[in-house]
Parts: sequence; structure tokens; C-alpha cells
Amino acid sequence: MALLVEKTSSGREYKVKDMSQADFGRLGLELAEVEMPGLMACRTGFGPSQPFKGARITGSLHMTIQTAVLIETLTALGAEVRWCSCNIFSTQDHAAAAIARDSAAVFAWKGETLQEYWWCTERALDWGPGGGPDLIVDDGGDATLLIHEGVKAEEVFEKTGQVPDPTSTDNPEFQIVLSIIKEGLQVDPKKYHKMKERLVGVSEETTTGVKRLYQMQQNGTLLFPAINVNDSVTKSKFDNLYGCRHSLPDGLMRATDVMIAGKVAVICGYGDVGKGCAAAMKTAGARVIVTEIDPICALQALMEGLQVRIYLWFCVGLWWESGTV
Amino acid sequence: MALLVEKTSSGREYKVKDMSQADFGRLGLELAEVEMPGLMACRTGFGPSQPFKGARITGSLHMTIQTAVLIETLTALGAEVRWCSCNIFSTQDHAAAAIARDSAAVFAWKGETLQEYWWCTERALDWGPGGGPDLIVDDGGDATLLIHEGVKAEEVFEKTGQVPDPTSTDNPEFQIVLSIIKEGLQVDPKKYHKMKERLVGVSEETTTGVKRLYQMQQNGTLLFPAINVNDSVTKSKFDNLYGCRHSLPDGLMRATDVMIAGKVAVICGYGDVGKGCAAAMKTAGARVIVTEIDPICALQALMEGLQVRIYLWFCVGLWWESGTV
Amino acid sequence: MALLVEKTSSGREYKVKDMSQADFGRLGLELAEVEMPGLMACRTGFGPSQPFKGARITGSLHMTIQTAVLIETLTALGAEVRWCSCNIFSTQDHAAAAIARDSAAVFAWKGETLQEYWWCTERALDWGPGGGPDLIVDDGGDATLLIHEGVKAEEVFEKTGQVPDPTSTDNPEFQIVLSIIKEGLQVDPKKYHKMKERLVGVSEETTTGVKRLYQMQQNGTLLFPAINVNDSVTKSKFDNLYGCRHSLPDGLMRATDVMIAGKVAVICGYGDVGKGCAAAMKTAGARVIVTEIDPICALQALMEGLQVRIYLWFCVGLWWESGTV
Amino acid sequence: MALLVEKTSSGREYKVKDMSQADFGRLGLELAEVEMPGLMACRTGFGPSQPFKGARITGSLHMTIQTAVLIETLTALGAEVRWCSCNIFSTQDHAAAAIARDSAAVFAWKGETLQEYWWCTERALDWGPGGGPDLIVDDGGDATLLIHEGVKAEEVFEKTGQVPDPTSTDNPEFQIVLSIIKEGLQVDPKKYHKMKERLVGVSEETTTGVKRLYQMQQNGTLLFPAINVNDSVTKSKFDNLYGCRHSLPDGLMRATDVMIAGKVAVICGYGDVGKGCAAAMKTAGARVIVTEIDPICALQALMEGLQVRIYLWFCVGLWWESGTV
Repeated sequence: MALLVEKTSSGREYKVKDMSQADFGRLGLELAEVEMPGLMACRTGFGPSQPFKGARITGSLHMTIQTAVLIETLTALGAEVRWCSCNIFSTQDHAAAAIARDSAAVFAWKGETLQEYWWCTERALDWGPGGGPDLIVDDGGDATLLIHEGVKAEEVFEKTGQVPDPTSTDNPEFQIVLSIIKEGLQVDPKKYHKMKERLVGVSEETTTGVKRLYQMQQNGTLLFPAINVNDSVTKSKFDNLYGCRHSLPDGLMRATDVMIAGKVAVICGYGDVGKGCAAAMKTAGARVIVTEIDPICALQALMEGLQVRIYLWFCVGLWWESGTV
Repeated sequence: MALLVEKTSSGREYKVKDMSQADFGRLGLELAEVEMPGLMACRTGFGPSQPFKGARITGSLHMTIQTAVLIETLTALGAEVRWCSCNIFSTQDHAAAAIARDSAAVFAWKGETLQEYWWCTERALDWGPGGGPDLIVDDGGDATLLIHEGVKAEEVFEKTGQVPDPTSTDNPEFQIVLSIIKEGLQVDPKKYHKMKERLVGVSEETTTGVKRLYQMQQNGTLLFPAINVNDSVTKSKFDNLYGCRHSLPDGLMRATDVMIAGKVAVICGYGDVGKGCAAAMKTAGARVIVTEIDPICALQALMEGLQVRIYLWFCVGLWWESGTV
Repeated sequence: MALLVEKTSSGREYKVKDMSQADFGRLGLELAEVEMPGLMACRTGFGPSQPFKGARITGSLHMTIQTAVLIETLTALGAEVRWCSCNIFSTQDHAAAAIARDSAAVFAWKGETLQEYWWCTERALDWGPGGGPDLIVDDGGDATLLIHEGVKAEEVFEKTGQVPDPTSTDNPEFQIVLSIIKEGLQVDPKKYHKMKERLVGVSEETTTGVKRLYQMQQNGTLLFPAINVNDSVTKSKFDNLYGCRHSLPDGLMRATDVMIAGKVAVICGYGDVGKGCAAAMKTAGARVIVTEIDPICALQALMEGLQVRIYLWFCVGLWWESGTV
Repeated sequence: MALLVEKTSSGREYKVKDMSQADFGRLGLELAEVEMPGLMACRTGFGPSQPFKGARITGSLHMTIQTAVLIETLTALGAEVRWCSCNIFSTQDHAAAAIARDSAAVFAWKGETLQEYWWCTERALDWGPGGGPDLIVDDGGDATLLIHEGVKAEEVFEKTGQVPDPTSTDNPEFQIVLSIIKEGLQVDPKKYHKMKERLVGVSEETTTGVKRLYQMQQNGTLLFPAINVNDSVTKSKFDNLYGCRHSLPDGLMRATDVMIAGKVAVICGYGDVGKGCAAAMKTAGARVIVTEIDPICALQALMEGLQVRIYLWFCVGLWWESGTV
């Protein structure tokens, strides 16, 4: 896909797979709005007072139908929004099309290359000469990472005149990040500093992202305030447990069209995510085996009637059963 | 226990463990009446017209609280009732006491010897010189068996003068049956013939009893009409399935005081009874293994997420697991 | 879609949506083959002896991946196959493409018009001048219907010279059927008679189709033998129960992307299909209300902890709850 | 029951309902030992080194079979033990008999009066002239309370010569506590001080008891160290959840002999205890309604497919349904 920004008739930027899917996306949005009464109540309650009037919000979070409802809630409260996905496969192209057409600047499609992914992230952060966003909605910390790496490189450049060297790392993804920063430096050697200065803060939704943030806080390298959304009870006790209980069979059935009943499902780990997955497989009629090394979680699995194996004995058992029954 | 018939102040016969438990039994009856709206509706609907007026009903069926509600429904509709249990252990002594005191002639207690058991059965069938019952409520066919064997013995005696010889069989229980018939012959050589003549018919509730009845029908030896209650849908699809789902954990918990969650339960056979038992164990948190040779039932167990083993592999598996994990 | 038959390089006829999906379909077939060990065992066991050598089989049955495994089993056993779907929406286009390219004549795509649907059915039955198929695999009885109506019309035409009049019926679908027969008459006035003569018999998979067949049998109008597949235990006790338990949440999730947990699901009827649907919704975390008029089925629902309502009270309840809570 | 201490032939004190149940209790102990591998491993691992040699342990904790296994583990590790129950109804008389006969001083029976209850508690704490126990195993904090109130009264008595006045309180149970302390004062005005001095500490198992302890700690009135057993994960996440899931249907079935399937069960509160109870009722086939005011817990109940009502609407609903359906 040629990495060229397109514009709506009203001049808003976007890059999506297929703008003709916007109507289909709108249909999905209408279904989802019924399911998200909290956000909808925000629109009713805070829409009139426009608390986000003039605020620039950048999001790096799966560009799905549900995220689209979030985006349109932010715009309903007055914000301007630029968005990219936080995963190269998770975008729903009809959702992206609907948002691009109707509500916000979107740079996201299903099946991005890593090169395309970071281009999209950089586009979502680029609010033009006046600096970056006021707020970031981050999921995995990639937008946060780009700003931190950008600021670091600009400081080195200011002191030594050196630009980042993509060949200095073996990590192919980080090579791309460095290339993007390098190109940015040549246009505006204070680009990421301006972003940092304008930014009020970031909210982060994943364990991975939150861990990075705590590390930076400890090292004294965290450049702006961050809110840990990940550890809120509605995330860990609902998204992890009930979300996985819903989405695991959904994903398996869409991907394989194969019956779950009568299968043996092995769940590796019995934390909240594992508990949701095991419940989904068990109730769909699979026989569930759990591998777990934490004794409390293992005991919980046992109390739920699941077979618990440490990994070694699970493998031996597989070998034995496959040879005999 | 001395096998002496006792009498209430009103002259009704009985033999129970402990008449002082009658109040406690009445309490249980009051709870159970709420649970048995069908029988209670019979009392309301048919009580005034007294359709069983003058009818003699003998029951050979677990002398429990629930049976007590049945007995009092029969008497509420006008019947006279004599009752024994169909199992040496199943009597609830407080139920027997309440019925003996208030409603019908009962000969039953928890923990009968076989000798006592058949004495009780014979007592329940003995309505005095005028012949036996009009109707039998049988559960397992023992009352039916006693009449058939009695009639057979009386025919032999009439033709040959020979009385039954208990030593002619190795079966200790059948020895007792023959002894009772032998004693009866000496009092009245037409006792069981009179019963047969008065009897309108029997209702039979178990698979075992029904099989015996069909055999006698085929052999031409069935002496009176019989109703197959066992195969009614409310028996096979409710009593077998939901009854077992309720009573299996109940029995295990009362008998052992041991937690079911986390155990491995092996259910031998996955018919209606096995389905109810497996569901009870699974939902109580046990891991369930089913042994089954019928391919359809085995496949159903698999579809419910249960581990299915033919017996041999189950044993080998037990040996293997016990040695390693 | 222009109704023109296309041909593979080997000369086999087909009409599908998009032949480029054949590789994707083959992938699905490979997954499904693992799930269908019965059919695969047929290939191994009977492939060498080619019992269907020379047999012509026409199928009118959902053109899905799973059906594709059936088709390739028939061809592996020596049959020639022509296929159409039995529903205008049920074809999986990648399955149709794979079969069209590799194995059999297919006339099916997702989203047929009724006109297209009957054209496909007629194509699947048309084996050229030598008459029709030897066997029909029917699902809903449409192939069977077309032959019966065709034969009827040919008899009228032979006696009176009259051709069917599509305007003689208000039913728009039956108008199409009559049109097709009318056109056929003009080409070959014995077309359906020849089919009937060659045909050994039909297997029928649905309740609907089987009912039609029994009616024709009673009326003496059934033209060839039929096998009732619908009432086999592996259909009614597995497809209906476990199939629905699997496919209901699958369909809901694909169509709406909406979480099932926390919803109220109303299941109308608690037969095998309703039992499977209710189990799926309950275990996915929905609260299930069953409407049922059969007392046994209603009692079963109650025993499973489901709320049971007759339809009227369900509606009143909805009205009440919606107004108050 | 006359409150007279009895003695075994070896001279150990006890007061139980029926010593003849000791063999039956031993049977229960043997079953339970298999279920409690942790305690049994303590016997094997620490029995030889006798870490509790010479230690006096007083327990105030349900005198059940499972507690009996704990008591015999303590004695196997060298301790001397005196025990009472912490509830007037919870003693299993066969367990008490077995322990009294074989292992430790027990003062407990099913159906104590409050007077008897506190007499038993005082007996369990009374180790003779040399002071009280070294350790207390408390469940509800009653042994701890008695010592604290005793010490307080002894201090007042020392300063003012005043003894506690049972009529100074309306609480009938606390009147009994004060009477016991008053009698003790007349025998030995330093009785509870001596106990306090010898005591190393107490372990407390309930929320109630732990709350009292934290209050005393904050007020500076806690006389000895205490271990909060209640908040350990194996208590709150297993005993509360899985323990209740097991014991609720057990208790209902023993007490009422009534079928759970098909009933409506109302669970007030959806914490760990409520979750276990709801799961037990749901899987036994009841329809479960949860009343809950905490929004997170209410949402969890909803996600499990349970009907959630705030209390007011539950009552209105009951009234409406009872009048119409």
C-alpha cells in the first residue's frame, strides 16, 4: 500500500483500506452503541458542556467497532482525534472507514507491514507544526515509546550532531523506529520535544505497557504523567476473564470452523485470562487440561474439575495417550 | 426386633422403629407436601368424591417422607392402606412413625434383616380373612412375586399335598420366601388364591420389576393386570436423570462428609442415570471419567467434555497415573 | 450474475462466485477432514473397491466446507457428482471454488436470487441426454420436488398438450419452478420421466423434507424410494443438540460482534434444538428464558434452572420489566 | 446437661454428649485424614522432632471431624490440647467422643445452651494453677474475649475491690460472660492475668474475630500477639468460595430433603461466599436471583447469567409474580 495520506472532502486526513465499507461500519457502530451504555451516557451527560473542546487526542489502540464508539464519544465531547491501531492485524476495515469518513483522522488497516504500522503511528502523533497531542490513549505503549525515543535522539543530535543509526540494532522493528525518528530529525530537530511539552499525559491499557512505564518512572526517564488503566478492576476482572471467555471460542470458530465439543483443550496458565479461556472451553464441551506452576491457581483449577498438569507430565501423558488410545 | 404387630389406640396395625419420631415425621411431611403439587391437587380435586372409598391398597415402596405424602393422598381419596418398604435400608423411621400414628398400617424400619423384610411384605399384603388388597403399588416387584410364588405353591399343594421346601434352593432370600409361603399354607391353603382373585392389578415402578412382568406375560404366568409406570417419561427422563443428579451428591456428602470438588469421579455407563450422575459430579467440581460401551452414549459423554474410556484402558491409565503423578 | 455455465480446463461444468478462492477453500477442507474421521475412513476402506464407480450423484445440500468433504468422499469412491446448495445464503464460496476446480460440478454461491437458486438446482440435476442422477442427496427436498412437479407436468402435457402456467399460482417461488419446467418441456417432453426412471432413490436430511416424503408416500405419489436420514440418532441427538449449541453463539458473534454474557436470551421451544440453544446461551453467561407449551419439555427447562414462560406471560413480563427496572 | 467434668481412665477431662459414638467418630476421622494431606504431611515431617513438646494449646473452633484431624496433628507434634466449639450447634458428637476418648480434653456437644457454651470455653482455657495455654486457636474470638474481659475485671477488682455486675448489661450472653469472670475472681483474682502472661499468642480464623483484634490493636488494648488466618488466600478464595459451594446444597438437602432443581434461589450478596452459593444453586438446577448493591459484584453476577435485583425491586417482583403466574 502506497503510504500516501488521503483527505476527505472536508479536508480531514486518513489512510484506510476501503472507504466504501463506511456504511457497513456505521451499521456495526449502531449495534455497538447499545452495548456501551457508559460511553453513551458520557455523550448525553457531558456533550453539552464540551469538556474536551479544543483538546487534541491521539489514540494507538485496536481500530475496531468498539474503539470507534470511544472515538466518537471523544469527538462528541469536543475533542479532535487522530488514531492508529496498536496491532498490525486488529483493525476492522469497516470501522476504520466509518470513522475516517465521519469523525476523525484514522491511519489503520488490517494486515499492515511493520513499516506501515510505524508510519501510521507517526501520522497519528503528527498534529502539524504546533506540536503533538494533548492526550494519548495508548495500548501497548508504542505511541509513548516513539515520543521517548524521539526526545532521546533529539538530545543526542543537539549535543553531538549525530542522528540515530538504524543499523546499530539487530531488532528489525526498532530499526524502523530509528529510521522514522531519523527522518523526523531532518525536518524538525525539535519535533518530539514539542510533543512532550504540549502533552498532558497518557493512559495505558496493557500489562506490557504499564510495566514499561513503571520502569521509566523508576529510572527517572518518564517524560509525562501516565494513568494505569490496566489494573482497574473493570479491566482485570472483566476484560481478562469475561472478555476472553467470549473471544476465545469466537476466534477459534471464525478461524477454523471446527467444533469445540469433544476436543481436548490445553490452557497454559490459570490466571484471570486462563480462567476465562478454560470456562469457555469447558462449557463448549471440550475437556480442559490446565498447566500451571502457581500452587494457588493450580488448586483453583482442580476445584473447578479441570485436569491439572505440570508441563513435563502433560507432554509425557500426550505421548502415552497418543500411542495407546 | 421381635416380629410382633403393634396397634394404635384406634386399633390400626403397625411395626416401626420409634413411634416417638412421629412429630418429626409430620414436619417432614409438611415440607414435602409443598414439593408435590400434583398429589396435593389430587386431594383437592378428588377428595370430595372419594373415588377410592372402600379400596384396599398395599404398597411395597421405599417408606420415605415422599411416599408418606402418596399414602396420605390415597387415604384422602378414601382408600385403606397397608405399607412396607421395598428395600431393607430405605425407610425413614420418622416418616414411618408419622404414617403409622396418623394414616395407615406400616411395617417398615431402616436396617431390616431379610427375614424381617419379607415378614413386613407379608404383613402389608395380609388384609385378614376376606382376601388381599384391591391394588398393589409395587417397586421392584416383591409383593407381586410373593403372590405369584404363593399361588404356585398352593396349586402344587392342592395337587400333591407337598409344601414348599426352603432347602430346595441355594438362594438365602428365596429360602425365606418359601418359608413364609409354607407357614401360610398351614394356616390357609387358599390364602394367595384369594388375594389373586380380589386383586384388580398392580403398578410397577422399576426396570427390574417391569422386566419380570413382561417375562411372566410372555410365559402366560402373569396372574393379574399390571401397569408399567417405569417407562413413563416423567420416570425415565426425570427420576433417572434429575433424581440421580440430586441424590448422588446428597448421598455421598451424608455418607462421607468429604468434599467432591477436585476429586476424580468414574461413572460406569452413560444412560439417563449415568448422565444425571455425571452432571452432578461435574458441576460439583469433580473431574469425570465415563466408561461406556454404547457408541452413541459414549459420543454424548464426549460432547459434554467428559473423558471417555473403555474399561481396560481406564484401568491401565489408573495404574500409570498412580505410579507417576 | 449471468446464468452461464462455465467449464474447467478438463471440461467439467460449474458456476461459482470466485474461482480464485479455491486455494483458501482447500485449506478449509484440510482442516475439516481431520474433524470427519467417519468419511475419511470410508475413503480408506472403500476407495480401492470403488463401489460408486459409474454412479451419478446429485446433491442439493448447503455447499459448505463440510459438504465438500462429503463430495470428495463420494468421488473418491468412484462417483461422478453434480451439486447445488439447498439455501440461497448457505454456500461458502471458497468451498464451492475448491470443489469446482478439483472434484465435481458445482452450481452455488452465497446470496443467490430465487431465480438463480432454481437454475442451480436444475443444473445439478441435468446430466445430459442420458437421463438424470442415480442417487440424490437432498436436504429440504427441493431436488425431489422439481422431479415430481416435472413428471406431473409432462403427464398433463402428454394427455392435453398443456404446459404449466406460472401465473396459475400466487407463490413467487413456485412460479419460478413452473417456468423452469415449462422451458424444459419445450426442449424434451420426457426429461423428468427419464430422470425418474434412472433414479435409484433419494436420501433426505430434514424434518421438512421427510414430512413431504411421507405425505407423498401416503398419497401414492412418491415416484422413487427415499431414505429418512433426518430421524437417525446421530442427526436428531447430535446435529440438533450439539450442532445448535455450537452454531448459535458462532452465528450471533459473527453477525453482531456483541457480547452474549449478561444478556437475556429467549428461546422459543425446548426440543433438541432449543435444548442446545439454551445450553449455549446459558453457558455463555446469558440469562435464559424459555417459552414452551409442551409440559414435559417445560419441566425439563425448569429442572435446568431456566425461567419458563408461556408466551403471553412472557410479553406481559417484558412490558412490566421494561417500564420499571 | 449437668455441668460436671468427666474423666477418662487415664485421667483426661472431658464433657461430651455420648462417649459410645467414639468408634463412629474414629471412622469419620479415617475418611477425613485422606482429605487433609497437608496436616498428615505435618505429622510425618514434624512428628519425630516434636516441635510442640510441652506446649499447651487451647482451641475454640467447631468440634467437627475435620477439626479432630487438626487436634490429633497438634498432639502428634507433641502438644497437649484442650478444646471447645465456637458455636452452640456445630459440634459433631461422634467427633467429640473420639477425641475425648483418644487424644485431648474436649468440652463440646451439639445443642449447647449459652450458659453451657461459655462453661465449655472456660473449661478449655483452664489448665490448672500454672496459668493458661501457650497458644489459642480461635474462631470468632470468644476465647480471646474471655481473657480480655477477665483481665479488665481483675484490674478493676484490684483497684476498687469491685466485682463485675452481670445486671449492668442488657445483653444476655454478656451477662453470662460476666458471671463466669465474677466466679473466677472469687477463686483466684489473678486467674486471667496468669493466662495473659503465659500466652504466646492467638490465631484467628474469622472476619468477625479479626475485626475485633484490629480494633483492640488500634485502641492499645490487645494483650498478646495475634495471627490473622482469615485473610490468607487459602481461606478467602477456597473456604469461602468452594467451601460454601459444597456445604450449601449439603445443608439444604440434609435439613429439608427437598429437590433444589427447578427452585428459585435468592442469594443476598455476591462476594466470595455469595459466588460459591450461587454457583452451587445454579449448577443444582435452581434459577438464581442475586441481590447486590456493590456495582462490580453485581456486574460479575450479571456476566454469569444470574438475575440481579436491588432488594426493593426484588420484593415488588415477587409480589407481582406471585399474583399472576
